[in-house]
Amino acid sequence: MNTPTLGTPRFPSPLTRTISDDIRIPQRIEVGADPGYLFELAGPRAQLFFDPAQTRAGIVTCGGLCPGLNNVIRSLFFELHHGYGVREVLGFRGGYQGLDPLRGAAPVVMSTEFVDDIHQEGGTVLGTSRGPVDTVVAVDNLMRRGVNLLFTIGGDGTLRGGNELFQEAQRRGYPLAVVGIPKTVDNDVAFVSRTFGYYTAVEEAAKVLKCAHTEAHSVLNGIALVKLMGRNAGFIAGGATVASQDVNFCLIPEVPFVLDGAGGLLAALERRIVERAHAVIVVAEGAGQQLIEATAEQRDASGNPKLKDIGLFLREKIEAHFKAAQIPATLRYFDPNYIIRSVPADAEDSMLCDLFARHAAHAAMAGKTGVVIGILHDRFIHVPIELLPQQKKCLDPAGPAWRAVLAATGQAERFE
Amino acid sequence: MNTPTLGTPRFPSPLTRTISDDIRIPQRIEVGADPGYLFELAGPRAQLFFDPAQTRAGIVTCGGLCPGLNNVIRSLFFELHHGYGVREVLGFRGGYQGLDPLRGAAPVVMSTEFVDDIHQEGGTVLGTSRGPVDTVVAVDNLMRRGVNLLFTIGGDGTLRGGNELFQEAQRRGYPLAVVGIPKTVDNDVAFVSRTFGYYTAVEEAAKVLKCAHTEAHSVLNGIALVKLMGRNAGFIAGGATVASQDVNFCLIPEVPFVLDGAGGLLAALERRIVERAHAVIVVAEGAGQQLIEATAEQRDASGNPKLKDIGLFLREKIEAHFKAAQIPATLRYFDPNYIIRSVPADAEDSMLCDLFARHAAHAAMAGKTGVVIGILHDRFIHVPIELLPQQKKCLDPAGPAWRAVLAATGQAERFE
Amino acid sequence: MNTPTLGTPRFPSPLTRTISDDIRIPQRIEVGADPGYLFELAGPRAQLFFDPAQTRAGIVTCGGLCPGLNNVIRSLFFELHHGYGVREVLGFRGGYQGLDPLRGAAPVVMSTEFVDDIHQEGGTVLGTSRGPVDTVVAVDNLMRRGVNLLFTIGGDGTLRGGNELFQEAQRRGYPLAVVGIPKTVDNDVAFVSRTFGYYTAVEEAAKVLKCAHTEAHSVLNGIALVKLMGRNAGFIAGGATVASQDVNFCLIPEVPFVLDGAGGLLAALERRIVERAHAVIVVAEGAGQQLIEATAEQRDASGNPKLKDIGLFLREKIEAHFKAAQIPATLRYFDPNYIIRSVPADAEDSMLCDLFARHAAHAAMAGKTGVVIGILHDRFIHVPIELLPQQKKCLDPAGPAWRAVLAATGQAERFE
Amino acid sequence: MNTPTLGTPRFPSPLTRTISDDIRIPQRIEVGADPGYLFELAGPRAQLFFDPAQTRAGIVTCGGLCPGLNNVIRSLFFELHHGYGVREVLGFRGGYQGLDPLRGAAPVVMSTEFVDDIHQEGGTVLGTSRGPVDTVVAVDNLMRRGVNLLFTIGGDGTLRGGNELFQEAQRRGYPLAVVGIPKTVDNDVAFVSRTFGYYTAVEEAAKVLKCAHTEAHSVLNGIALVKLMGRNAGFIAGGATVASQDVNFCLIPEVPFVLDGAGGLLAALERRIVERAHAVIVVAEGAGQQLIEATAEQRDASGNPKLKDIGLFLREKIEAHFKAAQIPATLRYFDPNYIIRSVPADAEDSMLCDLFARHAAHAAMAGKTGVVIGILHDRFIHVPIELLPQQKKCLDPAGPAWRAVLAATGQAERFE
Repeated sequence: MNTPTLGTPRFPSPLTRTISDDIRIPQRIEVGADPGYLFELAGPRAQLFFDPAQTRAGIVTCGGLCPGLNNVIRSLFFELHHGYGVREVLGFRGGYQGLDPLRGAAPVVMSTEFVDDIHQEGGTVLGTSRGPVDTVVAVDNLMRRGVNLLFTIGGDGTLRGGNELFQEAQRRGYPLAVVGIPKTVDNDVAFVSRTFGYYTAVEEAAKVLKCAHTEAHSVLNGIALVKLMGRNAGFIAGGATVASQDVNFCLIPEVPFVLDGAGGLLAALERRIVERAHAVIVVAEGAGQQLIEATAEQRDASGNPKLKDIGLFLREKIEAHFKAAQIPATLRYFDPNYIIRSVPADAEDSMLCDLFARHAAHAAMAGKTGVVIGILHDRFIHVPIELLPQQKKCLDPAGPAWRAVLAATGQAERFE
Repeated sequence: MNTPTLGTPRFPSPLTRTISDDIRIPQRIEVGADPGYLFELAGPRAQLFFDPAQTRAGIVTCGGLCPGLNNVIRSLFFELHHGYGVREVLGFRGGYQGLDPLRGAAPVVMSTEFVDDIHQEGGTVLGTSRGPVDTVVAVDNLMRRGVNLLFTIGGDGTLRGGNELFQEAQRRGYPLAVVGIPKTVDNDVAFVSRTFGYYTAVEEAAKVLKCAHTEAHSVLNGIALVKLMGRNAGFIAGGATVASQDVNFCLIPEVPFVLDGAGGLLAALERRIVERAHAVIVVAEGAGQQLIEATAEQRDASGNPKLKDIGLFLREKIEAHFKAAQIPATLRYFDPNYIIRSVPADAEDSMLCDLFARHAAHAAMAGKTGVVIGILHDRFIHVPIELLPQQKKCLDPAGPAWRAVLAATGQAERFE
Repeated sequence: MNTPTLGTPRFPSPLTRTISDDIRIPQRIEVGADPGYLFELAGPRAQLFFDPAQTRAGIVTCGGLCPGLNNVIRSLFFELHHGYGVREVLGFRGGYQGLDPLRGAAPVVMSTEFVDDIHQEGGTVLGTSRGPVDTVVAVDNLMRRGVNLLFTIGGDGTLRGGNELFQEAQRRGYPLAVVGIPKTVDNDVAFVSRTFGYYTAVEEAAKVLKCAHTEAHSVLNGIALVKLMGRNAGFIAGGATVASQDVNFCLIPEVPFVLDGAGGLLAALERRIVERAHAVIVVAEGAGQQLIEATAEQRDASGNPKLKDIGLFLREKIEAHFKAAQIPATLRYFDPNYIIRSVPADAEDSMLCDLFARHAAHAAMAGKTGVVIGILHDRFIHVPIELLPQQKKCLDPAGPAWRAVLAATGQAERFE
Repeated sequence: MNTPTLGTPRFPSPLTRTISDDIRIPQRIEVGADPGYLFELAGPRAQLFFDPAQTRAGIVTCGGLCPGLNNVIRSLFFELHHGYGVREVLGFRGGYQGLDPLRGAAPVVMSTEFVDDIHQEGGTVLGTSRGPVDTVVAVDNLMRRGVNLLFTIGGDGTLRGGNELFQEAQRRGYPLAVVGIPKTVDNDVAFVSRTFGYYTAVEEAAKVLKCAHTEAHSVLNGIALVKLMGRNAGFIAGGATVASQDVNFCLIPEVPFVLDGAGGLLAALERRIVERAHAVIVVAEGAGQQLIEATAEQRDASGNPKLKDIGLFLREKIEAHFKAAQIPATLRYFDPNYIIRSVPADAEDSMLCDLFARHAAHAAMAGKTGVVIGILHDRFIHVPIELLPQQKKCLDPAGPAWRAVLAATGQAERFE
């Protein structure tokens, strides 16, 4: 896997214990298998492309909140400032809008005082927004400010947008290293075995599941329905299910299901209620989309397709089912998205954020660009941004994680 | 204040350090003021009305969940079983329905094993429901099972229902002591300075407010709208506002407000957004009811008037206002009711639950009936149930608590 | 109870909803009892002694840490600055040392930015120390800086020291209102039904007791010995015992005990271990002092007598006892003092701190001096400082709190 | 890597989605490097060695507590009972002593009721102890009870002991599959990239570090010294340091240090105190052992060398240093070991425990024996027990984790 780079590094690094560009990490490690891509190992290089004393960096956070954003910002600043001694680190405000001088507030010149305590808070101290920026305007702005390193922390759209900035700069012959740090609580990024914030989200989701179980268990025929994040992948729903061990039905995008009929979800739920008098259902927001009547596809400001609300849909269907079956049941609906994603990172995600950030700094200083920091097999790697749109990471319905979900819930392998 | 009693106590108490019936606690203590009611001090009496060795007790929990229900159940059992040596303690299941042998499951004969760890869980191990029981059927059942003490843990309707059971038993000449423990996270019970679960609810609500603040603060013109409990009183909304210090507008039932006009909430919110670009609004569920278009009054199974949803109403009004004003704004709506009320009691509520329960056991053993355990001036008292419907405790808009809310939010004294 | 005051208030208050000086709160409220002292009700007065526009205030925190110190500092600042519009609020640094310009750092001129987020952190943003300041030097300094209001947040010694500053100023004819806010996690201040930080400390202590129980329960004959705070009073030990329900022996200063003999603690512990194979013991640091061999009394920098270490003493005695009895036992010792007192205030203490602080500001602005803010019967009051040294609040071994401890532990009423 | 096995599997598995024995996981994955050992991938096999209907299993937990023990016990039971339908699962009590009928209590016959809620508690529901069991006695007992699967959850000594049981059984021709699950909060097991409980321990340790920082920061020249776990490896000390970002000196076994001299720790600490007036020091219990005067080596009941107490040693040295330097300083010492290891597993460790347990069940049912479940490159593997004593996993002072510690603390690379 050749990693995009701005050119041959020219400056010795101030860091000790650097590593070589030649080390490769295979995508798959089962021996005998096709090794797949061989990624470059991330880490500090002995030679830098940029002279720290002449270099300005920018940081921007985009899209929805995710635990750990401030940790990433803080460690990026410290690695650039203390580790490399770069001249200035700018924090662009309010997402990509902040790259456009006419739309956003002026960037903050970051300092130790500015970042010192931010990791103790959720959210992002730089603010965020959805949607792109005019590439020409943004590169004009970056050039005028002398920014050569741009760190983009966001989801798919953000990372692709970062790549366009790099390409626009390249067209102009301006050395701009754009390095992305993938941000999604959903944990669904290919070549990244764990995205930051995911474990914190599972921890918070598991707390909500405990409440859901308490509510369901306290009344006769209590049904708690919890909608969790997960547009394309069921990692949060599945992880929280296994962590809490209190869930009876876990529905994720990767495993389609039907509602009606003897093998459908509603019949299974009815059996559970008749036998045990309470049930907890977890549904990832991207699950069961095919069940909801087709409407014209809509997209949000980030360009993601707007999901139809499977939570409210299921609530209605379940209530109608039990009414029709003349079984008195009490449904409690939980939609805890905002209180899950806005908490500070837990200890483990704090460690992870620190490593993501520092590896991103190393990559950019060495002139890597158009890359995202990934993790495979417990190693940090450089992933060319173009690879990402081609695939999403999903929860493998044949693997141990889904097996653990099935064991925890006792649910059928398929509702069909 | 004469406390209803079944008659002259006849048995010496096994407990040490008992207190006299003659001590009285004034309702108001400012000297010179009309002292109001003089309540009987709660506590163990030297003489009992019931012979422990011949006495059976029953416990029932009704209505919505509240942190600490299991603590109350557990300490009731231990005081009755270990403290007094009563013969049997029955846990009726599923609220008042459990008093009707045809509608509910058989009661559980409680034991040390049954209650030992229950205080570590939220909810109620006995289950709950809304709605009354047929008084004749319930007293038949209690008499058949030889239950002479009935502890009812619930809200207004539950406590009133308990009184009806006592009166029905009295008509039959059956000695049934009914002692209530007021249960409401809303903390709105007269003659009870703190209801159990209230502080835990404020703690949880304050966590949600922190998330709300993070969400609002992370985007341009972010508005977080949080609906909290409080049908008739703003104690949770106000308490969480003061505890978090992150709220800009706190709306409670005791302080009416208008939406429109120069002095209205929407104009104040718009000013805040224009000046500071984010805002957090807390609204108690019973606030602003007069704003919502009149519909035929509805009641829930417990007989409480159904509230119109002020949260969704405000969301719609706010979004429409900013759309009309052409100010881009992002509103995040939080409805955390279920995750607030279903957690276990915190340490302080655990202490409080223990004292409520033990004082209830003392009252019933001494033959008090038709009473509720109250707290005034840090003393536990006996409150005749008939007093309760006459008044609700409200947050005094002229007192220090509301003053603290106004100071924490900086909001106007009135939106009018 | 006449409250010391600097003289007749002369300025109208900017606050609304003020209260009169004439309202009194009786110390005891049982009707027929000697009412004891009648304290002045705290709260904002219509007339002020100080002209806000000409007034400077100072705040100082002294002694050991306590959850909520920063909340008190913050709400003091906001009430003085926003509520009254005082000219300047100085934060003296490092305890009373900070009042001496030669010993301490210069005071910070407090601002909204300075205090905005401090309530989210434990400790005290102003720093603290033990020990007094030279009264003459301190008053010189306060006069030079034009400080007319001094808020002292600390324990007994601090409050007494504040009174000496007031008296020194009075000798010089300088109007200095000194108002204290009692600070002790121990909750042992007379005329203060709850000191701030106490409930947070109980919450944290209860968490440690859960760990202690887990450790004791996991090995054969496991004994967990937990030393908690409580120099003169067992409120934390007792409160955490009732909250956790996991303790078998709770030892507090108010209830002396003997170790040896058939009625002693060691024999009772041995019986427990033989029968149940594990035990949890909580000991308040001031308990059992008479058991430890007399040595010359020592005092710490605050002038408090140095306690002999009952925790280590008990550990040694217990280990020796089981060795002598040839009963294999594993003792785990816990001394969690520092991790209990350094956490941020919980929601309830946050509310309490806010009210303490604002009532202190009201008192000082009205010219009250030599007073401490107290709470009786859920009302905030003015307590003349001279009353405090005369009595300590203790856990009443005949009252419901100790009864709850005995019920929770099942321990004997006395080890003697 | 050949995995020890009892023989050719003979029974079809009731599980779906099984995997083949032929898949191998390389120890190292950098391409071009010597691949090292090639481990067998763990997971359910299509053919079993044991007929579930005829099989009895035993579970035993040994050594010190670790978050997640109950989760492992619970998921082992469920996989064996529900997944495979084994006839009986016995829980041996009190560690290896429980395998000796004369020393331990009778094992519990596990059931759904027994395990249902245990994962919500810290500790181990089976109890634990240190030290071995007589191999002959234990195998006699296992054979008499018809136990063919033994799951040993413990540290090095436990795992080696399990292997001896397997070998003794093999000598007798008795098919006994012994599968170990490595248990150590220290996270120092080779071929196991994360041991369960480690992340929970870091989370709890980071909370203590926050308190330590608050204490140090609140007084002039405050020094907080925190001793954390880590006999041979600094993973907890380093992880908590990176997670909290509040530590100034982190001392671990892998990086020797000197106290005295210009390059020593004490001089660096003095500089920090003079410049910044507070400091937080973390020391892993196995760090700096060479500094403490040699005494005859002692071993605990598990056979581990007894460590000399570096925490108390450092406390004494630091206090003496500042006394000699006539710099007033206040040292607060924290030893939170027991409150870190006795909490329940967090969400992530809960997921991990579940997977460890289920993979252990799969291995044993397929006849694997003398193996430990490991994790490499995010895959669960079979590690022959003999490999473990040969190497310990250490925190690599040249890798990104230690680099993150140095960046977080700003400490010198070496104190020498």
